[in-house]
Amino acid sequence: DRSLKVFTLNSNRALAGEIAEHIGTTLGKCTVSAFSDGEIQINIEESVRGCDVYVVQSTSTPVNRHIMELLIMIDALKRASARSINIVMPYYGYARQDRKSRAREPITAKLVANLLETAGANRVITLDLHAPQIQGFFDVPIDHLQGVPILSDYFEAKNIEDLIIVSPDHGGVTRARKMADRLKAPIGIIDKRRPRPNVAEVMNIVGNIEGKTAILIDDIIDTAGTITLAANALIENGAKEVYACCTHPVLSGPAMERIESSQIKELVITNSIPLPPEKRTEKVTQLSVAPLIGEAIIRVHEEQSVSILFD
Amino acid sequence: DRSLKVFTLNSNRALAGEIAEHIGTTLGKCTVSAFSDGEIQINIEESVRGCDVYVVQSTSTPVNRHIMELLIMIDALKRASARSINIVMPYYGYARQDRKSRAREPITAKLVANLLETAGANRVITLDLHAPQIQGFFDVPIDHLQGVPILSDYFEAKNIEDLIIVSPDHGGVTRARKMADRLKAPIGIIDKRRPRPNVAEVMNIVGNIEGKTAILIDDIIDTAGTITLAANALIENGAKEVYACCTHPVLSGPAMERIESSQIKELVITNSIPLPPEKRTEKVTQLSVAPLIGEAIIRVHEEQSVSILFD
Ligand SMILES: Nc1ncnc2c1ncn2[C@@H]1O[C@H](COP(=O)(O)O)[C@@H](O)[C@H]1O
Ligand SMILES: Nc1ncnc2c1ncn2[C@@H]1O[C@H](COP(=O)(O)O)[C@@H](O)[C@H]1O
Repeated sequence: DRSLKVFTLNSNRALAGEIAEHIGTTLGKCTVSAFSDGEIQINIEESVRGCDVYVVQSTSTPVNRHIMELLIMIDALKRASARSINIVMPYYGYARQDRKSRAREPITAKLVANLLETAGANRVITLDLHAPQIQGFFDVPIDHLQGVPILSDYFEAKNIEDLIIVSPDHGGVTRARKMADRLKAPIGIIDKRRPRPNVAEVMNIVGNIEGKTAILIDDIIDTAGTITLAANALIENGAKEVYACCTHPVLSGPAMERIESSQIKELVITNSIPLPPEKRTEKVTQLSVAPLIGEAIIRVHEEQSVSILFD
Repeated sequence: DRSLKVFTLNSNRALAGEIAEHIGTTLGKCTVSAFSDGEIQINIEESVRGCDVYVVQSTSTPVNRHIMELLIMIDALKRASARSINIVMPYYGYARQDRKSRAREPITAKLVANLLETAGANRVITLDLHAPQIQGFFDVPIDHLQGVPILSDYFEAKNIEDLIIVSPDHGGVTRARKMADRLKAPIGIIDKRRPRPNVAEVMNIVGNIEGKTAILIDDIIDTAGTITLAANALIENGAKEVYACCTHPVLSGPAMERIESSQIKELVITNSIPLPPEKRTEKVTQLSVAPLIGEAIIRVHEEQSVSILFD
């Protein structure tokens, strides 16, 4: 049997511990610290020779440091003769820089994919990429997990009547559709339009929300501008109450203030990015993706163990 | 004639400006900022199509951010059809992680070289690498400049009598030798020894320093532990006065306190890493490497312009 080891870096230690527990192991020994000048120092404190290694790291804030931790860890594992290096990246930072929308823009999401492969990653397990096309940025296998079932199950247990699942923009309709199917609810779309240039955007709501409980769903909530404006527009237009949910709680800058003072009744997120204590308010519910990721690791590892027959 | 453009990122704007001035141009227009969540946003605001581009960036503190700025800039330039992307990295961060000194260590200096090439760097101009072997980590051409002439010229102009150039450790003897040759002075070496395990190190001074003015030379001064202990040992053992100099003023943690309270009369450094105002004390003299780097760029660009004949 091939031996599996799970390591964590600094972005998401609690989730990594839960994942290890789910698959019946403990985290590998490794310290990730910094020299006096801020350079990252990694010490892997147990052998990884011949092992299938899983490294848990979201490239959330501070994103550049977290990316470098991951690249340096991959380099160390490769030189320590790990048999396979599998990256578990619940949140993929820089995913919104996935295309040139203007001249001379970088495509940082592709750069990050190239950097991971150059360092020596053999496989990537990730969750709700901002654009599913990012899978194609990799030449190594990538497992793309989805948060919709976890979010949907949470709302299903609430037994809310007269639900409608609302996408805050056109880009998110597929995701809203998936949740709606699971909850047997209709969908709505917030259709932002600028009637004429230099005139404020108008929130046009597609779908009948009158008297209904709306669940807004997005992949990322960052500054929370879009989602709070959408929630308020839904209430103004007759919705009974509004929940919001997303997979990745980036929640930067004014996000928490906006959410607290908005019409959102409850914000449901996952732990793909850990929440600092000041963001764990009464309005916020965090669900764990550890079982989902743990199962994915078990599946991948079985596959890798089978492939040994052909090696 | 091929057109040359110099851009700067955030680590070393003043030096980049001086370099551009030296070669008779101005800096290319480019903004390097951050989104609300800390992800780097780069906007190159002028065409680089068909140009030979030089990007000035030391990977000094905050090293991880500065590396990512550089990689993202290279990606953007590549996608904007720059003809060649030349990296001017006066200080090469992570250079001290250049070998496995223990099991399962990364070799981050090599990783960084791979990352730069993966992003699309065509050439690297750098200064006093911690280990000259790092040149071999690159497959693209690398120009390795030296700070010793600049530091030596400064001391030569002082017309100090009875000089001795001292290396603070065995690793730096070649560098001390070069300075000694230029200043026509003898060399000394600080030979740190631990007489027995768990006994404090003894500073044994090789060379006759009695009544002489010593110049300690190193490549990097980081926490300044080594250099200040060396300076004090020189004075205790009869040196008349002690200067210290280095190319790269990392000066992290307790460095400035140690220097200020040491026997060092003057610390001479270059601007490969900018000094924040609080480190610009009376003891510190900063010399510019802009002419040195400017000349290197002119040379490289001439070479690239000649090669057009063969393209
Ligand atoms: N970290 C970020 N924070 C905010 N906006 C970003 C970030 N990264 C990229 N963007 C911008 O977000 C847009 C992509 O978002 P979307 O249209 O939802 O795919 C692009 O215009 C990017 O310039
Ligand atoms: N940023 C850093 N700050 C302090 N020490 C470091 C740093 N990076 C690497 N090292 C250590 O410094 C030693 C290399 O220094 P040297 O022997 O002078 O080449 C190695 O033992 C490294 O572990």
